Amino acid sequence: MFLNKTTFKLDRKSKQALYLQLANTFIELIKNRKLLPKTKLPSSRALAENLNVHRKTVVACYEELSLQGWVESIAKKGTFVNANLPELKAQNFITDDNKNANRTGFNFYKNKDFTRISPQFKDEFMYLNDGISDARLTPTEDIARIYRRICSRKHIYKDMSYGSLFGNEKLRKTLANYLNKTRGLSVFYEQILITRGSQMGIFLASKLLLKTDDIVVVGETNYASADSTFLEREAKLNRVSVDENGLVTKEIEEICKKHPINAVYVTSHHHHPTTVTLSAERRIHLLNLAKTYNFAIIEDDYDYDFNYNHSPILPLASHDINGNVIYIGSVCKTVAPVFRVGYLIASKEFVNEAANQRRFIDRQGDALLELTFEEFIKNGDLDRHIKKVMKVYKTRRDIFCQLLKERFQGVFQFEIPKGGLAVWLILHKKYSWSNIAKIARKYQLEIGEWQRYDSAKTRHNAIRIGFATYSEKEIYELIHRLSKTILEVKSLEKSL
Amino acid sequence: MFLNKTTFKLDRKSKQALYLQLANTFIELIKNRKLLPKTKLPSSRALAENLNVHRKTVVACYEELSLQGWVESIAKKGTFVNANLPELKAQNFITDDNKNANRTGFNFYKNKDFTRISPQFKDEFMYLNDGISDARLTPTEDIARIYRRICSRKHIYKDMSYGSLFGNEKLRKTLANYLNKTRGLSVFYEQILITRGSQMGIFLASKLLLKTDDIVVVGETNYASADSTFLEREAKLNRVSVDENGLVTKEIEEICKKHPINAVYVTSHHHHPTTVTLSAERRIHLLNLAKTYNFAIIEDDYDYDFNYNHSPILPLASHDINGNVIYIGSVCKTVAPVFRVGYLIASKEFVNEAANQRRFIDRQGDALLELTFEEFIKNGDLDRHIKKVMKVYKTRRDIFCQLLKERFQGVFQFEIPKGGLAVWLILHKKYSWSNIAKIARKYQLEIGEWQRYDSAKTRHNAIRIGFATYSEKEIYELIHRLSKTILEVKSLEKSL
Repeated sequence: MFLNKTTFKLDRKSKQALYLQLANTFIELIKNRKLLPKTKLPSSRALAENLNVHRKTVVACYEELSLQGWVESIAKKGTFVNANLPELKAQNFITDDNKNANRTGFNFYKNKDFTRISPQFKDEFMYLNDGISDARLTPTEDIARIYRRICSRKHIYKDMSYGSLFGNEKLRKTLANYLNKTRGLSVFYEQILITRGSQMGIFLASKLLLKTDDIVVVGETNYASADSTFLEREAKLNRVSVDENGLVTKEIEEICKKHPINAVYVTSHHHHPTTVTLSAERRIHLLNLAKTYNFAIIEDDYDYDFNYNHSPILPLASHDINGNVIYIGSVCKTVAPVFRVGYLIASKEFVNEAANQRRFIDRQGDALLELTFEEFIKNGDLDRHIKKVMKVYKTRRDIFCQLLKERFQGVFQFEIPKGGLAVWLILHKKYSWSNIAKIARKYQLEIGEWQRYDSAKTRHNAIRIGFATYSEKEIYELIHRLSKTILEVKSLEKSL
Repeated sequence: MFLNKTTFKLDRKSKQALYLQLANTFIELIKNRKLLPKTKLPSSRALAENLNVHRKTVVACYEELSLQGWVESIAKKGTFVNANLPELKAQNFITDDNKNANRTGFNFYKNKDFTRISPQFKDEFMYLNDGISDARLTPTEDIARIYRRICSRKHIYKDMSYGSLFGNEKLRKTLANYLNKTRGLSVFYEQILITRGSQMGIFLASKLLLKTDDIVVVGETNYASADSTFLEREAKLNRVSVDENGLVTKEIEEICKKHPINAVYVTSHHHHPTTVTLSAERRIHLLNLAKTYNFAIIEDDYDYDFNYNHSPILPLASHDINGNVIYIGSVCKTVAPVFRVGYLIASKEFVNEAANQRRFIDRQGDALLELTFEEFIKNGDLDRHIKKVMKVYKTRRDIFCQLLKERFQGVFQFEIPKGGLAVWLILHKKYSWSNIAKIARKYQLEIGEWQRYDSAKTRHNAIRIGFATYSEKEIYELIHRLSKTILEVKSLEKSL
């Protein structure tokens, strides 16, 4: 083939050096068999003249091609396309790149139980969530200032290479102090593994506790991500009832009498999703069962910091004298989900093994962010932040609950939550969430995956709605959209 | 029992409110059965006087205990320890907290093949590594400045709540452009999953490709973390030879003729650990085999940016027209390990499923850091950084290799690496690394886990030594300590 300017389309403004542009075109021609093996390439002088480039550029290109093995230079004879190059097999040559992006040339395992991709958010829509904090209240600039200060420390580079699998030691120590003080724990820093967030804690605990057909006990309603993490381990879920005092531990005892179980997953502070608190009696019962039957309690204390009427209830982990509790939480849920710093606390032996497992999924955490939060906690910034936002969230809870009560009599039933950022909203049985979700979209309100709150199919007809992410004005707007939705649902009801 | 000041040890300087300190002591007494169920507590007035605290403090404490279910208030009768509280069973009461920290009250699965905890570093020691960048050269302040600027953006809170499983979309788009331009890829941003680093990419790929007894082909020498990730999936490793042109693809073909394989793992740019480059001929052969036998190629392009003599060789992924390559890399290995931003690139379908798997281990990445690196790449900072450090690393490589050559004739054999940050150092067969490692410690030099370079037990007697983390002065010091070590090894040899 004749090699000219049209063949090469050199772009002198590109960041890529000319010799590389040349080389890449040659590689394409060779791969596509437009230049066959053994073809002689033009001399560097001839090609340079032809393309109006410096001869050195062509020489550099040929060297590059030779180094990569696409061509061979034979002394006094010239440069030839490598004789041994096999032909690159293609389905057929594709001009539509998008088709290529969709082609997978091999088989792989898919998780049938759980294929769910995040929704695409539209600005004009309001999206319900299951109780997350309001990112607008984050002291972002304070955190960024600490971050930058830490980055300018003289010896900070020592924390910037490969570090401990357990997370930054300073943060582990500060966290041990902080949790011992605020949550009644009595742990050493060696018992703390810094994770990216609670989910990583749940994953690591499941990895060490559960294999195929092992049994984990969960509530008949339960945090959906925990359920799917256990199912992903191919474990069996044994569900027990949840009443106004949390998990019914008597049922756990019945199960233990029949066969061994590996773990119980519990959100003791405010049961996810129904928001009830595990009573003291059941706490002790559960701890005793764990001792008698040698199982692990995975205590996910996701919203310890959020209490309106009273001080938080100490976690099960604070009463754990037999080493049965794996305590999981997140420093940063309280601040904003973007800051991924959480922890897993258990015996040293368990934590060592969890660290070894962590190696496989994510070599280490972000020491700079960990050090930032170390300061944020030690300085009292975290406590101050919690105090500040709790006032805001309490107001939001009160307005939200008041409006729910006023506007939806006979439609919704709920208890005002004593803590946490969500309400467990029970819909009267003559209505269905499926209908509401459909109609709500007309009013730019997205109910979300309401089905996930009833994975055990008990038909409780309830969902969990977070109120904390909305300003007072937004709460009114949300209730307004919900009112219009319910009005239409009711009128449809009547017209039937 | 008599409740007095000694019982309660109230600390008025503590951050914890007095009523909570009171309550926690009560809980301890109840749990330890020093206050038995049905015991009547003193009246709030009496206890307040006794302890010299305000009566409201005791009332708040009793309310707290009641809320938590430890006590019951019976109108006109008083406050009693809850009659239904079971006794908390303990092995026996432990006074040594440390024993508690070591107690695990349940069984769990350990990974026998791979229990390795990071070493504790001592300041006066020099530690060999397998080729990592020098954190001291990181433009930390520039990065921190971008980070802070991003944090002060008006609408940044939108990126601070729960975000996409795939990583920040802006970064994915910038990365698609960047990689298409610099590495000859032609990918859409939807084909990119942002990970925390290469290890997470290897993990996610293994998760989707390998189950028990599935086969993955690797080199007879191979990156140890990849090996252990595959073994952790309970996959079988089929090893093929590695020569001066990389993986011997003919041997892969022989394996495929006998039985199906699921994947080939390859570090094509510079084979880990031996540093050789996969030749063009073998690249095409491997791609053709993947097409014919429907397997996945996991291409770990860990050091694409590090080349001394020529431009980098385009990855296999740039020639992948049949969707066989899963391309894994890390933006930040080039900068510093602390910045955990990597990527996995494959077909959209595969990337979607990888994102679903990512949900289990770590809900999402750090959008603020991702946006920081988006700017760092788009502004050309990354390219400028690479150019700058490459000059430094080239000098270090040259000095290191020159000294190795001068000082250790007949002891070590090696090739000067054309790229990357490490040398593959073959020890003469009359010496052993085990001896050297032992003696080196006397001279404050830690050879590290030399065994991991020969997991296939081929007795090549070589290890990989990174040179990039040492300044010129430190290289001289390192060589000095190694010289003293070798001298002692030789003299021991003679005296035998």
